Order: sequence, then structure tokens, then C-alpha cells
Amino acid sequence: MNIKQIAKDTAKTLSSYLTYQAMRTVLAQLSETNPPLALWLHRFSVDKVQDGEAYIQELFKEKPDLALRIMIVREHIAEEVTEFLPEMVRTGIKQANMEHRRQHLERITQFDVQTSTPESEKQSTPDPNLESG
Amino acid sequence: MNIKQIAKDTAKTLSSYLTYQAMRTVLAQLSETNPPLALWLHRFSVDKVQDGEAYIQELFKEKPDLALRIMIVREHIAEEVTEFLPEMVRTGIKQANMEHRRQHLERITQFDVQTSTPESEKQSTPDPNLESG
Repeated sequence: MNIKQIAKDTAKTLSSYLTYQAMRTVLAQLSETNPPLALWLHRFSVDKVQDGEAYIQELFKEKPDLALRIMIVREHIAEEVTEFLPEMVRTGIKQANMEHRRQHLERITQFDVQTSTPESEKQSTPDPNLESG
Repeated sequence: MNIKQIAKDTAKTLSSYLTYQAMRTVLAQLSETNPPLALWLHRFSVDKVQDGEAYIQELFKEKPDLALRIMIVREHIAEEVTEFLPEMVRTGIKQANMEHRRQHLERITQFDVQTSTPESEKQSTPDPNLESG
């Protein structure tokens, strides 16, 4: 496992995601102030926002003012949210893992009850050990 | 801008991405130790790994051992990488923003040089203000 490479790739993905959130924020603002431009931005962004840097670069060629605005917003969002992410993600994953284990145990237990009871009653004499408990 | 909601959505996206990285790690390990199972996991994961929790849930129903393994790996990756992400992402976005601005200025300058020289020479008398500078 190459932790350093994973950290690098994750930072890049996260940066692209914050660019997407910045675009959505600007889009919401434009919907109020300039609906035609909002529509233009929506159409422009729909298939390009996977790679944040390529997206900004393309947008710069079409509408530099919008590109600058989204860049400022994503920097602001990054300042505001990134510090909380480590704790949120670690806690989130731990809780989700516990919940998956719990659900799995529940399924195993139900499966055992459902299959063992009718099968054993029909096909063989009941195991005395099961009734003595 | 709803920073709290953005933080929540970003943490969820990040958690799904770390689940994807955990799957890739397990996939690389299985390619060495159990190629048929690696192939199975690859096929199973290809269209499901966008939502980390739904993915783990589905995998639990098919191959609980693999689901448990990916859960352990993603928890480990989260412990190792998340603390570095805030600094990496903030610095990355700042540097990328600077680079985009630099490229934009370069394009504007080139554009001005390219268009002003031949166009003004062909279509009109040169603006004396341009030459006095």
C-alpha cells in the first residue's frame, strides 16, 4: 500500500470536489442575479467538472470572470471546511464499519434461525442439545 | 453558501473515495495471491464503488470476508492520510489558482500583441497613444 500516493490522489480528488461545490455555489448565486448566465454555466459544467483544474482552465477561455469567481469561492470553501474533514471522515468510517458489522451479524443470525428451525424439524429428530438450553 | 452542508457532503465523498482506494489496495493484493478472486472483485466493483456505503453493503451479501477486509483497509487509510489532507488541499488550491491567473495573464498579453499589431496596421491608422507609451 503506497500511502503517500493515496494521500496525493485523495488531495487531488478532494480539490476537484471543492471546485464542484464552488461551481454549485456560484450557480445558486447566478440563478438569483443572472438566470441566463446560470443556465450557460450549468450547461458548460455538466460534463467537465470531474477534473477541477481542467475545468477551470476551460472556463477561463470562455468566461474568465466566472473562472476567477469560482476560484475565489473554492479557496474560501477550502479554508472553511478542510480542517474539520479528518475527524468527520475518521469517525464516519468507524461508525459505518460498526453498522455494517452489526447488520451482517443480524443477517447471519436470522439466516441461522430461518434455516435451522424448519429443516431440523422436518428432516431429523430434534437435537436434544438445542432444547436443553 | 451553506458551509456545514458542504462539509458534510465533502466528508461523505471523501469517505467513498477512501473506500475506492481500499478496494484498489485489496485488489492489488489479491492479484498476487488469488487472481480469480481479484477478477471477481474487479467485475463486482466497477459500477458500484461511487457510493462507498452501498458498495460495502452489497459486497457483504456476496463475499463478507472481502467486505470486512476492505472495511479494515479503509479505516487504516483514513487514519494514515486524513490528517495531511487539509494542508495539502489548501496549498494545492492556492497554487493552482495562482497558476491559472498567471496563464490567463499570459494569454491576455499574447492576445493583445497578436491582434493589435496586424489588425491596427491593416485597418486603421495606428493609434498615437499606443506608440507614445
